[in-house]
Amino acid sequence: MSPEGPHRVVIVGGGFGGLYAALALKRAPVAVTLIDRRNFHLFQPLLYQVATGALSPGDIASPLRLVLRRQKNTRVLLCEVTGIDPARRQVFLSDGELSFELPYETLILAPGVRHHYFGHPQWEALAPGLKTVEDATEIRRRVLLAFEAAERRPDPRERRSWLTFVIVGGGPTGVELAGALGEIAHHTLKEDFRTIDPAEAQILLVESTDRVLPSYAPELSIRAATALERLGVKVRTGAAVTQVEPDGVVLRAGSLEERVAARTVLWAAGVQASPLGRILAEKTAVAIDRDGRLVVEPDLSVPGHPEILVIGDLASFTHQTGRTSLPGVAPVAMQQGRYAAELIQRRLRGEAPGRPFHYRDLGNMATIGRGAAVAELGRLRLSGFLAWLAWLFIHLVNLIEFDNRLLVLIQWAWNYLTWNRGARLITGGSRPPPNHTTR
Amino acid sequence: MSPEGPHRVVIVGGGFGGLYAALALKRAPVAVTLIDRRNFHLFQPLLYQVATGALSPGDIASPLRLVLRRQKNTRVLLCEVTGIDPARRQVFLSDGELSFELPYETLILAPGVRHHYFGHPQWEALAPGLKTVEDATEIRRRVLLAFEAAERRPDPRERRSWLTFVIVGGGPTGVELAGALGEIAHHTLKEDFRTIDPAEAQILLVESTDRVLPSYAPELSIRAATALERLGVKVRTGAAVTQVEPDGVVLRAGSLEERVAARTVLWAAGVQASPLGRILAEKTAVAIDRDGRLVVEPDLSVPGHPEILVIGDLASFTHQTGRTSLPGVAPVAMQQGRYAAELIQRRLRGEAPGRPFHYRDLGNMATIGRGAAVAELGRLRLSGFLAWLAWLFIHLVNLIEFDNRLLVLIQWAWNYLTWNRGARLITGGSRPPPNHTTR
Repeated sequence: MSPEGPHRVVIVGGGFGGLYAALALKRAPVAVTLIDRRNFHLFQPLLYQVATGALSPGDIASPLRLVLRRQKNTRVLLCEVTGIDPARRQVFLSDGELSFELPYETLILAPGVRHHYFGHPQWEALAPGLKTVEDATEIRRRVLLAFEAAERRPDPRERRSWLTFVIVGGGPTGVELAGALGEIAHHTLKEDFRTIDPAEAQILLVESTDRVLPSYAPELSIRAATALERLGVKVRTGAAVTQVEPDGVVLRAGSLEERVAARTVLWAAGVQASPLGRILAEKTAVAIDRDGRLVVEPDLSVPGHPEILVIGDLASFTHQTGRTSLPGVAPVAMQQGRYAAELIQRRLRGEAPGRPFHYRDLGNMATIGRGAAVAELGRLRLSGFLAWLAWLFIHLVNLIEFDNRLLVLIQWAWNYLTWNRGARLITGGSRPPPNHTTR
Repeated sequence: MSPEGPHRVVIVGGGFGGLYAALALKRAPVAVTLIDRRNFHLFQPLLYQVATGALSPGDIASPLRLVLRRQKNTRVLLCEVTGIDPARRQVFLSDGELSFELPYETLILAPGVRHHYFGHPQWEALAPGLKTVEDATEIRRRVLLAFEAAERRPDPRERRSWLTFVIVGGGPTGVELAGALGEIAHHTLKEDFRTIDPAEAQILLVESTDRVLPSYAPELSIRAATALERLGVKVRTGAAVTQVEPDGVVLRAGSLEERVAARTVLWAAGVQASPLGRILAEKTAVAIDRDGRLVVEPDLSVPGHPEILVIGDLASFTHQTGRTSLPGVAPVAMQQGRYAAELIQRRLRGEAPGRPFHYRDLGNMATIGRGAAVAELGRLRLSGFLAWLAWLFIHLVNLIEFDNRLLVLIQWAWNYLTWNRGARLITGGSRPPPNHTTR
């Protein structure tokens, strides 16, 4: 792959943006290198089901090499990107032992986001977020251990704090986690214990704005809150978490402060762009928005560097007709990945640049336990069982591998029939979770 | 549960021995407490399939509370046993924060085994064994990372050492691991890499006696060795590992010593009884055999303590007609668990003690990759496809939960059709593995 060889495309990140870009380059006359720290693509929209014991990590992860094995113009490198030199068109890589340089003609940056604790990095060990497989098994471990500890504690106050779960953040992840926890407490674990009644568990969903799912239609927020309360979840809107401690949180609503004793706190509140954004901003004229994302051109490129395309959660993209930038969800990343691949091919064919990127909004959905979901699909607003079926269907067809689709379908059917969550294993140690990982 | 309440049975360990004892006490007028460090029963005979990416941990693990949820005379405690006082009939427990004492009328000890490195505990971090879910995901991580590292290494010598895998111990676990690795290198990963050919991998199975599967009929050892070599595994019998280092092992065969450069070494050589055995031996008259196991009476009790029954891998049991003690396999533990439950019920009914424990040997089997296995079932000796079908069937029906059976069946069918191993995820950190865990 000398400069005389095929056009070299380096893609950083094997999430929805990076992987879909690579797949869309299948027939292009290019040499693709896909770089990720992990050897698998993770279907993050179902990660909360791993965290709550309904699915196994293997069900929602697809090895990148497996997905791309027949695509002969593409290789996968398991590496970390340590730097970028836009002037020399090189990325710097490290695999822990060795460092490399990799030249590119086009660079697609799709590294994703990590959690963000609003200036309190020490909260991370106390309140894990949900971005990686390790996050999910850590949350699963903490939730299950909390019920176990409660079973062994004679003191009712202590028991109560073990049975109190606080979820910070009422977006889709927080809503889905809270719904699943409600189901676990009221149904799955119903007969499992002898001393405690799991249904005594307090599940608190804390959201700082005035409604859950603030990016959805207000009507759906109300329906979601109702469905959550039916599962025993207490929804606390207009409340901010001002302190996270090993045995509780401090909430502030207006001028009132309240301390809630809770041994399990889960973080679904904030994300922050990959540090690669900052690295690139130091070397180019690209602006960074207040979430650390790169403000890209209408064609997703970096100003002054048409050969660098930024997609997915790292990109801050606003339609010329729109007022807010696009949300950090999988469909945006997938469409941007395909757009980037198309743009590269147009350029190679010497065609005109084509239209700017336009996000085709297919809607939003969130599920709240068994048989309940809310969805907006275009102008259609659904809730309840129908929305839930739509949710199941759309998530199933988007799983990358056929065997994963089959396995997830069977597990869901089984879980539905039995209220069971067979993957509720406590595994792994109690090591402090690392600050996670752009992907 | 005062002394006037039901007879209290404390079972230590939720493996095959302890769980089957608890299940067999379902209708007995007793109060059962099952203690384990883990919240799930693990189907260890299939653990090597997790280590080699064919199955997920959730497929072969069943939450103990789920299995026992309808058994109202039984409770589960997630704890560690720190001591036993046979005189006062108490076990001492700790859950990390709290310590407890638990009284019993009958104690069933089934804590299992851990790895044994023959006086070289420092080898454990270099050559992980296969006893727990964490062991399995750690082995999976190391094997997959080795191929990844080889893909990135330009130096052929270094690449070769990353592509060399040494398995120490030619018993069933070593044979099954070696067979699965052979399949991975020659089939599963065939199209996955661009720089290396995974089929170049060297897989070395080292066994110190003169044949693999030394406890099986010699005829089956030969067939197993042939099937392994067909998968590209080099079988080195009569060779002992005298040194394990981060980048290789030293083998001694007779007076010859040889160093093999290998970045991945897996341990399937030795086990050692739980330290609970030694704790009990200090306080009773029970003898310890050279593997650290307790030499039990014909009814599995400890000499002088008929109320303490030892089952599974911790028990050293020899039939009056036999010469060698029973092997540490699941069927022995299951039958002993059921025997112990029956013995307790006979005693409670005031009946005569009944016959001593007798192991009904149902045979041995090991699988060597797809479509190949060896089995001795009574006088019947099978190998090849028929043995493999028998192996599949027996392992499927013995999985505890129905949904696990279904999921494993589907994954196996899928893996068979596609040569695939979809659960080949690299997860978890590179922390040194702890010295593992009696179960």
